[in-house]
Amino acid sequence: MSSVSVEVHIEVQTFYAQQMRLLDALDIEGYVQTFTEDGITDHAHRGEKVEGRAAMIAGANAALPRYQGVAVRHWNDHYLIEEAGENTLNVTYCSLVTRTDAEGKVTFEPTFFIEDVLVRVDGRLYTKSRTVHRDGQAKPVARAS
Amino acid sequence: MSSVSVEVHIEVQTFYAQQMRLLDALDIEGYVQTFTEDGITDHAHRGEKVEGRAAMIAGANAALPRYQGVAVRHWNDHYLIEEAGENTLNVTYCSLVTRTDAEGKVTFEPTFFIEDVLVRVDGRLYTKSRTVHRDGQAKPVARAS
Amino acid sequence: MSSVSVEVHIEVQTFYAQQMRLLDALDIEGYVQTFTEDGITDHAHRGEKVEGRAAMIAGANAALPRYQGVAVRHWNDHYLIEEAGENTLNVTYCSLVTRTDAEGKVTFEPTFFIEDVLVRVDGRLYTKSRTVHRDGQAKPVARAS
Repeated sequence: MSSVSVEVHIEVQTFYAQQMRLLDALDIEGYVQTFTEDGITDHAHRGEKVEGRAAMIAGANAALPRYQGVAVRHWNDHYLIEEAGENTLNVTYCSLVTRTDAEGKVTFEPTFFIEDVLVRVDGRLYTKSRTVHRDGQAKPVARAS
Repeated sequence: MSSVSVEVHIEVQTFYAQQMRLLDALDIEGYVQTFTEDGITDHAHRGEKVEGRAAMIAGANAALPRYQGVAVRHWNDHYLIEEAGENTLNVTYCSLVTRTDAEGKVTFEPTFFIEDVLVRVDGRLYTKSRTVHRDGQAKPVARAS
Repeated sequence: MSSVSVEVHIEVQTFYAQQMRLLDALDIEGYVQTFTEDGITDHAHRGEKVEGRAAMIAGANAALPRYQGVAVRHWNDHYLIEEAGENTLNVTYCSLVTRTDAEGKVTFEPTFFIEDVLVRVDGRLYTKSRTVHRDGQAKPVARAS
């Protein structure tokens, strides 16, 4: 039911574990290094497309004040992985985002659905593009008979 | 510590990623097709047992209004997989269920513990039965000394 | 990107699925048996270090009243696994903790970051030490350029 090997599955799970740790540590430089030099982040729900590491760093720095004094965590689930070519993977997953403040109180960002294209360069995965869809904006169409 | 191979583990994780996507898209027809023709869903906590795809579709359609205008997501964890026979797997896991509204506000359904029986037919997994237990209704007994 | 085999990855995921089930069932005796006899739990954020199974049982029993009438669930993500020696693994992960009451209402503990040392004895994994860091207490330093 999946086009990729168990090794690739675990490789991808580990890639996201590492990338999400960097993101949640607000380690912008480290996070951006997990993208290709020409990597793209497209927040489709707010029509905001950022291209290249330099632009991603600038955008992330601008967003930092929003995360002052809170610990952010991304909780991902339901990875589906398809081989799109040699060393290219299409990966989709869902993400729940928490914010924990100094008192330990947890609040939530919206939930998201994400479409990534990963490429393997010199044996290492990078995100080439990321398209983020915010949940709740368009009602999914039920195709019930 | 598990009776099944890594290949089966990844096969099962991928099965749930696909099935939960269909469920959360409110794609009732697609979701029901991931069950066997005689598949059973038993919501043990409300004594509601539904047998067969046709009855499952009717029941799901009746529940649809509850999800108008919100995006539902199931977040599963702690899969335990046991081989129960050739091409039959007993799978248990926990599920956290979010509802995200048009403004992006996230609210929560109760948490659940689920017991599934999966069968493999022509190389493809299907749910033969699903028993859903709502958390919080019976206090677990602590067997501490 | 990981130093361990896919078999070890699945072994570790299964270990946590089993251990978290025992913890969330408030099965203190069963949970403590997943630690080595001299196992250590260190709640770094409150300077509380508990050493050995007997002390862990006493501590857990003292904490039980806090969980009267609610179902607790730990939701883990982003496991990173490093081989630290023969039959010794360093595992880190994040944990979201829910409490579901009799009415099904879900509330949240703070989120956590956990560092475990696992050892394999007679082919079976045990936690030798667990260090728990509560999120939100120290703001992560952004190393952005």
